[in-house]
Amino acid sequence: MDSPQSKLDILRHSTAHVLAAAVLEMFPEANFGIGPNIDNGFYYDFDLPRTLIPEDLPLLEEKMRAIIKSNHPFEQSAIDAKKAVQLFQKAKQNYKVELINDLVENEKSKEVTIYKSGPFVDLCRGPHLDSTGEINPDAFKLTSIAGAYWRGDAKNKMLQRIYGVAFTTKQELDNYLKMIEEAEKRDHRKLGKELDLFVFSEIVGKGLPLLTPKGTVIRKELEKFVLEEETKRGYQHVITPHLAKVELYKKSGHYPYYKETMYPIMKVDEEELILRPMTCPHHFELYNSKPRSYKELPVRLAEIASQFRYEKSGELSGLTRVRLFCLADAHIICAKEQADDEIKNVLDLIDYANKIFGLAKGKDYRYRLSLGDKDDNKKYYKDDAAWEMAEGILRNTLKKIDAPYFEAKGEAAFYGPKIDVQMKKVNGQEETAFTVQYDFVMPKRFEMKYIDRDGKEKEPIVIHRSSIGCFERTMAFLIEHYAGAFPVWLAPEQVWILPISEKHTGYANTVADKLRSANIRVIAKNESETIGKKIREGEIQKIPYLLVVGDKEIAASSIAVRQRGQGDLGAMKLEGFIEKITKEIKEKL
Amino acid sequence: MDSPQSKLDILRHSTAHVLAAAVLEMFPEANFGIGPNIDNGFYYDFDLPRTLIPEDLPLLEEKMRAIIKSNHPFEQSAIDAKKAVQLFQKAKQNYKVELINDLVENEKSKEVTIYKSGPFVDLCRGPHLDSTGEINPDAFKLTSIAGAYWRGDAKNKMLQRIYGVAFTTKQELDNYLKMIEEAEKRDHRKLGKELDLFVFSEIVGKGLPLLTPKGTVIRKELEKFVLEEETKRGYQHVITPHLAKVELYKKSGHYPYYKETMYPIMKVDEEELILRPMTCPHHFELYNSKPRSYKELPVRLAEIASQFRYEKSGELSGLTRVRLFCLADAHIICAKEQADDEIKNVLDLIDYANKIFGLAKGKDYRYRLSLGDKDDNKKYYKDDAAWEMAEGILRNTLKKIDAPYFEAKGEAAFYGPKIDVQMKKVNGQEETAFTVQYDFVMPKRFEMKYIDRDGKEKEPIVIHRSSIGCFERTMAFLIEHYAGAFPVWLAPEQVWILPISEKHTGYANTVADKLRSANIRVIAKNESETIGKKIREGEIQKIPYLLVVGDKEIAASSIAVRQRGQGDLGAMKLEGFIEKITKEIKEKL
Repeated sequence: MDSPQSKLDILRHSTAHVLAAAVLEMFPEANFGIGPNIDNGFYYDFDLPRTLIPEDLPLLEEKMRAIIKSNHPFEQSAIDAKKAVQLFQKAKQNYKVELINDLVENEKSKEVTIYKSGPFVDLCRGPHLDSTGEINPDAFKLTSIAGAYWRGDAKNKMLQRIYGVAFTTKQELDNYLKMIEEAEKRDHRKLGKELDLFVFSEIVGKGLPLLTPKGTVIRKELEKFVLEEETKRGYQHVITPHLAKVELYKKSGHYPYYKETMYPIMKVDEEELILRPMTCPHHFELYNSKPRSYKELPVRLAEIASQFRYEKSGELSGLTRVRLFCLADAHIICAKEQADDEIKNVLDLIDYANKIFGLAKGKDYRYRLSLGDKDDNKKYYKDDAAWEMAEGILRNTLKKIDAPYFEAKGEAAFYGPKIDVQMKKVNGQEETAFTVQYDFVMPKRFEMKYIDRDGKEKEPIVIHRSSIGCFERTMAFLIEHYAGAFPVWLAPEQVWILPISEKHTGYANTVADKLRSANIRVIAKNESETIGKKIREGEIQKIPYLLVVGDKEIAASSIAVRQRGQGDLGAMKLEGFIEKITKEIKEKL
Repeated sequence: MDSPQSKLDILRHSTAHVLAAAVLEMFPEANFGIGPNIDNGFYYDFDLPRTLIPEDLPLLEEKMRAIIKSNHPFEQSAIDAKKAVQLFQKAKQNYKVELINDLVENEKSKEVTIYKSGPFVDLCRGPHLDSTGEINPDAFKLTSIAGAYWRGDAKNKMLQRIYGVAFTTKQELDNYLKMIEEAEKRDHRKLGKELDLFVFSEIVGKGLPLLTPKGTVIRKELEKFVLEEETKRGYQHVITPHLAKVELYKKSGHYPYYKETMYPIMKVDEEELILRPMTCPHHFELYNSKPRSYKELPVRLAEIASQFRYEKSGELSGLTRVRLFCLADAHIICAKEQADDEIKNVLDLIDYANKIFGLAKGKDYRYRLSLGDKDDNKKYYKDDAAWEMAEGILRNTLKKIDAPYFEAKGEAAFYGPKIDVQMKKVNGQEETAFTVQYDFVMPKRFEMKYIDRDGKEKEPIVIHRSSIGCFERTMAFLIEHYAGAFPVWLAPEQVWILPISEKHTGYANTVADKLRSANIRVIAKNESETIGKKIREGEIQKIPYLLVVGDKEIAASSIAVRQRGQGDLGAMKLEGFIEKITKEIKEKL
């Protein structure tokens, strides 16, 4: 139904047609919804006499291969809309009839395009391949079955959706399937459970994760990193309340824009309070709490800030979509002429943090310059000159630091353009992790001022930014990125001491105590299990260092070191090991 | 009206009578409310023909001294209630008439006691001094005027209340007034503003402080201290959501008990969510997220936890009474037989933290053992044996560690007895800072279990506790305790570098950079002001160290050190100073 663009898109959409034809063979009474191409493949929605089971998929694939082998041409023809309605009515394809009627009504179409390949006829704009034979029978796969409301509306009937992937070569398909398999293994929801990092509780509520002691270690290390690095770079951390009078968000303009995802107003006594969806206006109130001079600028107010947005339950997912999140937030309030430098500094901080996480610029992430739209006065604050200037500043900065970026119109915030940090996930998909926004609207709304060198009152601008994004999502991302094998500084348990037998537990405890005094997170595994089992358990739990201690080690006052990913490093003196691991922690290796 | 007890109480209550007599002289049409003794003094409520002004107080004091000099005896007589009504009706004392009618109705009194001293007659149970002359005319003072509803009910008329203090000797009065003056100087609301530690914003809302960068440094240092010290002592920190389904608090039983101070329920989609008034049930859900063995106990789950209680606007005060607070919270889940040791460890942690803050056990704080009440089945969970055992454990622990404590019946939590940490404030008043609670009810409600050594499932008990209380209140307390002169480890700005003239700013910056790399919070005060003015400003801001640098210091590669409270320490090498201050920070001196 959609208009495919690239050659691969055309191939994928054509494969969807072949799937529909195969389904028709299996269920002659099948009713067809729509079947567009999507990233890496396609789907098609069907109304079928029975529920599909996973075992149906290989059978359908077989039928598809036969259709491909038959090499039916895709024959396009434009026919009169009324005739098309009759044609599909006759075939009892009521969803297609509905679509044609809509085309007639909304787009005033008099003609519609249909595609025929073999016995299968579909309403479709195309384009398609020339014939089914052009599809590589070894380079596609049906991957899953799901439910999907007709036209995405819960009031309509639930159809059955079959997802598939399709590529040009078998090699590409295999690579893709391998990546997906790896992504599933790394799924943070799966690893979160296996490594005991976070849990959910039915009675606490959906989208409200509880971080276990281990998950909390990671979170606190990330918070510490943000606090220390930002302080070093001239940010001042503040702590502001999680809720405020709804008036505050009406003044900022957030309430009308974010109302849908804000929690309901709480009325108590004379007050109307609401959980904050963001911290900006809180920081502006702090800025305004005393007169400001140009000498103080830039004022960089940062906060490790809880924020509340009510996501629909269908959209919740592990730590990536939650109903309460904590952002490494900041607002830089500066003179217009300082904006350039400040944005450069922000991008430098982001690059630095990403480097710490082992992410390569250009490969693992890139920037998107999200622009406003002069013609959309409803979505964007109207001030063409200000938009142009702000967009120019962001663009120039990206160019100056030679950042990998692309531009996207109509993706800006309502108060100004922004730079989005586009992160590549392990499943190959790109998503916006967080943003850097240029804002010339809020300073007006909050009447923010400073006294300039010349004694005159001037209006600053605001840069909204994060450094590592929201902690929940970042944690999810890092769990998947590291596949749970966290670098030592982030690992909840950095070292396990494994005594070979019970008589070595005393020495194990001594070693553990010494490491603990050196601020290393250590556990002495004194359970009466075989050393082999303990090592395996340590490997499953992805512990960075396993220190085996037995008679030999006691005699030599040493430890036998096994490093994750490196294997047996042999015997070491404890002091040497402490020096090694402390260096790794300090340098975040 | 109340029954005074101690000799000082009797003196104070008698002085209230003298005040009433003085008011009657000034306003013959005065109507009298009640006039009890209170801590350090007394008050009396009046219905007067005009609003009192502060200038009235010395005039009234003069009249009181004359009455004292006249040495009227306090003559007690018991008279028939009906006759008393007539007497006070005749005197147009309608409040007294109301009180007598109540006594007749509620206490079935047939007689009431009246006291006469000179021309003034009052309805009063007594006892009093023998005569007004026993009051020391130099040892009392009228301190303030306030509004107070008759019988504390906002529906009644607002009366005028005069507060006073009274002692046996002038020396005692002077000491008290000096302490109050000092307390006012140290008032955290006043110092918070002067030192720029926190602010309030009308549009953010009442009771919702915003911590400035400086206030945030103190808060984060306190958080760090709690996190590190608790981790060292075997606590595991967790992070759980600020809100949950209301069901959770119904299950825990908090909802019925705390409903009045909880925020309203937020209904969204199918959910009923509410801001948490405490973290206990969240931690129980974490405990229950996996099977537990006796080997894991005690499980000590700690959290630096935001909690939400809606305090009435009249009760809000600076950082001490707020609408959103953050508690250094923890729940120890352990076997019954471990409770003893765990409570001892908790008290040890509390003593340790208090010692760090320079608080002496017995002098600055003591413990209160708050017991249940067997006869109050409404307020307390019914299980006499469990109460007795729990109370015994707490009492024994307090005895064993020889803690200064007293007992208070009917002050327990609904789920068990508790030990309250009673802190003495700078104004001499004692208040409960936080508590250690023994809980045998929640484990039942949440079906918490562990598998014991014998393979059988058993029920643990829970100890609810804090280590330093809620951060807002602790901060308020510490601001007043230190009068804003924070020890170096807590000081938002630890060092100021003061160049004598502009040509020394380069060296000032070099020194600042070196201190900064040693993780010291430092500011180079390079403004073009006189060195004298800079030193004074540093003293007002209570900066621990002021380092003066000029030609002499540059030539000698040294600094001239001024330590707060110690004055000029003379020249030091920078390395020596870094060593000195780093030691003080590390040891929290």
